[in-house]
Amino acid sequence: MKEQAIIECVPNFSEGRNMDIIKQITDAIESVDGIQLLDVDPGKATNRTVVTFIGSPEAVIEAAFQGIKKAAELIDMSKHKGEHPRMGATDVCPLIPISGISMEETAAYAHQLAKRVGTELDIPTYMYENAATSPDRSNLAIIRAGEYEGFGEKIIKPEWKPDYGPQKFNIKSGATVIGARKILIAYNVNLNTTSERRANSVAFDVREQGRVKRKDDKPNGEILKDEQGEAIRELGKLKAVKGIGWFIPEYGIAQVSMNLTDTEITPLHIAFEECCKSADSRGMRVTGSELVGLVPKQVLLDAGKYFLLKQERSTGLSETELIHIAVKSMGLDDLAPFDASKKVIEYCLEDKDANPLVKMK
Amino acid sequence: MKEQAIIECVPNFSEGRNMDIIKQITDAIESVDGIQLLDVDPGKATNRTVVTFIGSPEAVIEAAFQGIKKAAELIDMSKHKGEHPRMGATDVCPLIPISGISMEETAAYAHQLAKRVGTELDIPTYMYENAATSPDRSNLAIIRAGEYEGFGEKIIKPEWKPDYGPQKFNIKSGATVIGARKILIAYNVNLNTTSERRANSVAFDVREQGRVKRKDDKPNGEILKDEQGEAIRELGKLKAVKGIGWFIPEYGIAQVSMNLTDTEITPLHIAFEECCKSADSRGMRVTGSELVGLVPKQVLLDAGKYFLLKQERSTGLSETELIHIAVKSMGLDDLAPFDASKKVIEYCLEDKDANPLVKMK
Repeated sequence: MKEQAIIECVPNFSEGRNMDIIKQITDAIESVDGIQLLDVDPGKATNRTVVTFIGSPEAVIEAAFQGIKKAAELIDMSKHKGEHPRMGATDVCPLIPISGISMEETAAYAHQLAKRVGTELDIPTYMYENAATSPDRSNLAIIRAGEYEGFGEKIIKPEWKPDYGPQKFNIKSGATVIGARKILIAYNVNLNTTSERRANSVAFDVREQGRVKRKDDKPNGEILKDEQGEAIRELGKLKAVKGIGWFIPEYGIAQVSMNLTDTEITPLHIAFEECCKSADSRGMRVTGSELVGLVPKQVLLDAGKYFLLKQERSTGLSETELIHIAVKSMGLDDLAPFDASKKVIEYCLEDKDANPLVKMK
Repeated sequence: MKEQAIIECVPNFSEGRNMDIIKQITDAIESVDGIQLLDVDPGKATNRTVVTFIGSPEAVIEAAFQGIKKAAELIDMSKHKGEHPRMGATDVCPLIPISGISMEETAAYAHQLAKRVGTELDIPTYMYENAATSPDRSNLAIIRAGEYEGFGEKIIKPEWKPDYGPQKFNIKSGATVIGARKILIAYNVNLNTTSERRANSVAFDVREQGRVKRKDDKPNGEILKDEQGEAIRELGKLKAVKGIGWFIPEYGIAQVSMNLTDTEITPLHIAFEECCKSADSRGMRVTGSELVGLVPKQVLLDAGKYFLLKQERSTGLSETELIHIAVKSMGLDDLAPFDASKKVIEYCLEDKDANPLVKMK
């Protein structure tokens, strides 16, 4: 039996203050059968709302279209102000394959969605990341450079002809970037220290960017530079991992806060293990960890199997048992109980009556 | 300023079924000013109740005397049946120095108490452990050998003349053993496995008794014996530690369950660290730990300082901060929140209005 195909969609709308408008947009998204809204995160300063929902590919692109359409009706970009770079009422709309679907298939759905947005709503639309039509357009920041205010000039250049929709500036709605990308996992590892500096030293050990090299390796030593005057970096252990250390007053401990941008390159459990090793070598101990949002089930199944294999045990267990071992091994229940029905994307869809994780601040 | 002297007293009464009798005994104990009852643990099968209380040395020996007196009134040993070895209505009554008092001073209080019990209640009384009057009598099991039923014959032997009280069998109350000993800490370390066998392998690595040696070091190999036919043991890493592995269905994990019999020899944090090392070497991870009863404050302060020193940090912190680091480092809040006012003996005495940990089953 083929696994049910699930896509996650994370549109960013350029409205973060007017709760009535935000509600109308999410209502339009939720009006589509089979859609589960997972998160609504409005920001006052950015005047921008990040919405997360999941469903079958067909349902997701229909719901995304309805959300983009409603945003085009209700948001007037000519009056928009906010701290985050943006160029459209629906600024960016990535599709993320969760299970039972490939990145290529997901990118094809992104094109279907973009074509409708361009044709039916007259919004210039650009494809990015894994749905990009050329390497020059794969990076969101490059497409968005100049922002809404600069787009009237940018769009008429031949090299910025939209992938879909008219090559004509849409004053009310701006332009929209649609694409397909891998899931990003926000993951924090807890340490038995209150020291942000020590947590940072672990973050620098593990993150891809590593740390800048300093004279004689002294913490306050002069930063060493190459012939072009660029700081020389000592790379960290893990690819596709961003990270920083911080102190959380609420918990009274410091954490290594990471973004895992590609769990095929660096899985969750490897990020955990490398933090343990680094902490241990620095006299600290990892006491547990915390998933900030939701994760695809496979991430936890892989982790469960990894820890069982380390114990030379059989991995022929049920999903529930594998997830239990993963949760216990990484201490995902260290700071708060771990409720799989709210943390595992697939389980949220199965259990639509469960509380959606909607934060209407 | 000298620290306030605190003694813990853990009398074992030969009644575990009649809650009315147990209540009258604990009421007599609690009637003494400044006494904090910490735990009442009756056992049906053993027909025995273990009571734990603390206070100043004077209050504790007065309360112990009142409890022993009440037990002598209400319990008739000639009718007692139960699975645990016993020889008296108050079977054994150890005093345990917690803070601000030495073992020698505590033993002197034990003698004061025993003298009153012998003289005023006519109960033959023997001193044991650190209060023993001769090395032959330091071991409780040896004093109690033969139990209540055999004591009529045993007591008339010159070598079993009681330390206090008449050299005459007390048919109703039997005999009582009083003494001074170190605190025993029941401590469980949580593993990321469900395997009792793997938890046992960690227990065998760390406990003083270690494991029996087997042919070719195979788990099912023949047990190797010495010339006297005794199994050859491979000792574990830690002195004064007993331990076993078990699986806890309630938590869905296996634990190393330990008794630390002398935290001056093996402190709590060292027991934790050695379990971590052993687990790590066997592909497992320690996910936290659990104190079953209460601990003297110093045990946690020492642990907090240990983990700070490992991080090369200053240990000049408040008690609360040191305990926080200890709790976080050893994951003492892994299975349940850690409430210092209910887990640290000294804090229980300070906060008498807090719920006493009375389990009246």
